[in-house]
Amino acid sequence: MPVDLKYMLNPKSVAIIGASKNPEKVGHIILQNYINSGYSGKLFAVNKDAESILGVKAYAHVGEIKEKLDLAVIAIPAPFVPAVLEECGRAGVKSTIVVTAGFEEIGQKELQEQIVSISEKYKMPMLGPNCLGVIDTRARTDTLFLPTYKLSKPGVGYVSFISQSGAVGSTILDLIAGEGFGLSKFISYGNAAYVDESDILEYLMNDEDTKVIIMYLEGIKNGKKFIEVAKKVTKKKPVVVLKGGRTSVGQQATLSHTASLAGDYQVYEGVFKQFGFTIANDLNELLYYAKVLVSEPAPSGNRVGIITNGGGAGVITTDSVGFVKTLKLAELSKKSQEILRKKMPPLVNIRIPLDLAGDAGGDRYETAVSVLKDDENVDMIIVIALFQTPGADSSVVAKLVHFKADITKPMIVISIGAEYTQVHNKMMEESGLPVYDSPLAAVNSLAELFKYYSYKNQK
Amino acid sequence: MPVDLKYMLNPKSVAIIGASKNPEKVGHIILQNYINSGYSGKLFAVNKDAESILGVKAYAHVGEIKEKLDLAVIAIPAPFVPAVLEECGRAGVKSTIVVTAGFEEIGQKELQEQIVSISEKYKMPMLGPNCLGVIDTRARTDTLFLPTYKLSKPGVGYVSFISQSGAVGSTILDLIAGEGFGLSKFISYGNAAYVDESDILEYLMNDEDTKVIIMYLEGIKNGKKFIEVAKKVTKKKPVVVLKGGRTSVGQQATLSHTASLAGDYQVYEGVFKQFGFTIANDLNELLYYAKVLVSEPAPSGNRVGIITNGGGAGVITTDSVGFVKTLKLAELSKKSQEILRKKMPPLVNIRIPLDLAGDAGGDRYETAVSVLKDDENVDMIIVIALFQTPGADSSVVAKLVHFKADITKPMIVISIGAEYTQVHNKMMEESGLPVYDSPLAAVNSLAELFKYYSYKNQK
Repeated sequence: MPVDLKYMLNPKSVAIIGASKNPEKVGHIILQNYINSGYSGKLFAVNKDAESILGVKAYAHVGEIKEKLDLAVIAIPAPFVPAVLEECGRAGVKSTIVVTAGFEEIGQKELQEQIVSISEKYKMPMLGPNCLGVIDTRARTDTLFLPTYKLSKPGVGYVSFISQSGAVGSTILDLIAGEGFGLSKFISYGNAAYVDESDILEYLMNDEDTKVIIMYLEGIKNGKKFIEVAKKVTKKKPVVVLKGGRTSVGQQATLSHTASLAGDYQVYEGVFKQFGFTIANDLNELLYYAKVLVSEPAPSGNRVGIITNGGGAGVITTDSVGFVKTLKLAELSKKSQEILRKKMPPLVNIRIPLDLAGDAGGDRYETAVSVLKDDENVDMIIVIALFQTPGADSSVVAKLVHFKADITKPMIVISIGAEYTQVHNKMMEESGLPVYDSPLAAVNSLAELFKYYSYKNQK
Repeated sequence: MPVDLKYMLNPKSVAIIGASKNPEKVGHIILQNYINSGYSGKLFAVNKDAESILGVKAYAHVGEIKEKLDLAVIAIPAPFVPAVLEECGRAGVKSTIVVTAGFEEIGQKELQEQIVSISEKYKMPMLGPNCLGVIDTRARTDTLFLPTYKLSKPGVGYVSFISQSGAVGSTILDLIAGEGFGLSKFISYGNAAYVDESDILEYLMNDEDTKVIIMYLEGIKNGKKFIEVAKKVTKKKPVVVLKGGRTSVGQQATLSHTASLAGDYQVYEGVFKQFGFTIANDLNELLYYAKVLVSEPAPSGNRVGIITNGGGAGVITTDSVGFVKTLKLAELSKKSQEILRKKMPPLVNIRIPLDLAGDAGGDRYETAVSVLKDDENVDMIIVIALFQTPGADSSVVAKLVHFKADITKPMIVISIGAEYTQVHNKMMEESGLPVYDSPLAAVNSLAELFKYYSYKNQK
């Protein structure tokens, strides 16, 4: 039976055990984050020495709370966790998140086994220990105990993110906050003592608000269980995975980090490839690939059409297509060539990459995209818009966003630059147009999109 | 005899031929840019129909200007350029920049030959035609005819940038504006009719304010001449090169862009490698490699020490070292291990990557760097600082900047995140600490640093 994580992610009632008046304590920050994020369920604090904390009524014991609790977030020192879990079990709490560290990762194996067996006894799913917990942007749930001023919070979206590492988790969350696509759920699972990466994958596989899953992991707890889920999940939605410990030196490093038996990466890579996972090799690739996979439809083939307002950027992007063996440069159909020859100024060379020249504004982009979107020889479109050029301004953005509304082919944008450019990129991203700051990353992302749908659609 | 570009880059007197009162005209924007950038030499406008433009006295003909002119910037329609060049030659103008397009790149080969032969007749070096011209941040020279609001301007630095393509040039300039290292000179040479890439390389090779050269090129005009310069330049300073047309599809694209015979990239690559050029494969790599090469000293070897406050980021960076065959992970000396064991909290595992844990602040970084900088087993240092963690704040920046002042090993920083992080990254960059937003890019950059000095120091 799959583990149901809905009580953790979307609880109607939550107790913060270890809530504190001291603003430096984890239990204080978690309670504060629940309040700040606009959580609308019932919130309780558990603390022996306070009547209320941050305006939330406090109880000495979880058992004293009359309300049925969907979730207890536990932020007390490790040795006290077993007793509190017992209390939670007896009180009928439906799930727990143990953020406390100090278990198997520092050799306290027995203490960890103890909290697992209590959780099992009460059939009470536990996330952690030694984790950051969860964010659910729709449910406005946030158990992260990081100072909010250090970390920008992502908007609501359809990408869910699983991280074994807390710091990688918070870094990527911070980056997602700057992306247009937003976040659905974030789950940091730490030691995976009860709920593990396979449970989370399986839950997100069936989650309607998750269209793409990205994950950072160092080890897999149960290989057979993982493979069972892996077989199913990518048939439903893409999973982008970054594995820590892909080299022998990296594997040794995982040992002292999460005590993961990272194992031979060739085995992992084999499994990932066999089951259509999208493999990232750096943190930024998690975002690059998520971006294209969450917004773009399945391509009809691998031929890439390129539109540009800068010749050099067109050349560099074409080179990138040439490097990526999965893709091909599109050739314009005779019909497209005729239309473009009629409509474009004479200095525009009618071929791919289609260089609209530095004085191109929205109108010339409109003509180009309208032709490429109907050309049967073009499966995917890359639009390069360099906003340093004399002609490019927000009219280009307006036309591209307009097309994005009903185009049935993948279409992504490359736009690189500082302030003036960033303003335009933000407009496009927020309108669902994926924008890339690197030609190579853009092309690699289309290649991953093509590979994913080739896997998904094979018999 | 090398072509002397000093009259173009640092002219004491300039005439803008084609200066205009119409703010949309190129000649207006160039004059405006000279005024805005604080140019302190003598400035003249040449325009038949005006007495003065933007407060600058205008003349009908360049010959009427009594002052000796170091430079004439020519921004008039192509058919009129030969006659004006003749006037310049007769008036003893020392150099010209022809920004006007409409020559060989659109098939007007004869017109281009005409302006070359006039320039040769008067021994008057000409940059262009069909180029953006030059920026010299120290001389406050700026001939770019792009609207200034679209393009952030780089600060003063020691990286010089040569670009065949105008749009790639302006995009990269815009990006350099966001980097701490700044710009020395930018030279966009367009059709390379007189002054070509080899002339520019040779000039910058001897330029004291240039420590690193980055270049985008699609073709080379004279292979033999290029090889002569290539042999010499990298023995003096690093050259990072991005070549457009590295694949067969990319080569075809260069034909319609700069009419370059891009030729077989294997030949280019062979030359670049033989002469110790640093090869970039994407626009952002030009900046990544320039950043490390301009600020870091020669490493004593290839062993990389890693300090981190996030285990996962340490693992990913270690993996990147594992992937790059040129580098090795450093192993701490016995002495370093002893010192660290004494000074670090017990939960810190004494090995590389050295994980200081999420509560590490400036003091723990100080201890770590002070040990690694004296460890003979460590040739280069990567410091990972994730500012989302509870412990990291500007105390980390303060300590790192302090060490940077006298450390003799390469030391670079990986710091990834949104607003709070960016503020800290800016502080570090402006203090000369190279900051990377990607573990893989950081490691690749150290590998390129190591490779460059291995080449330079070989007999």
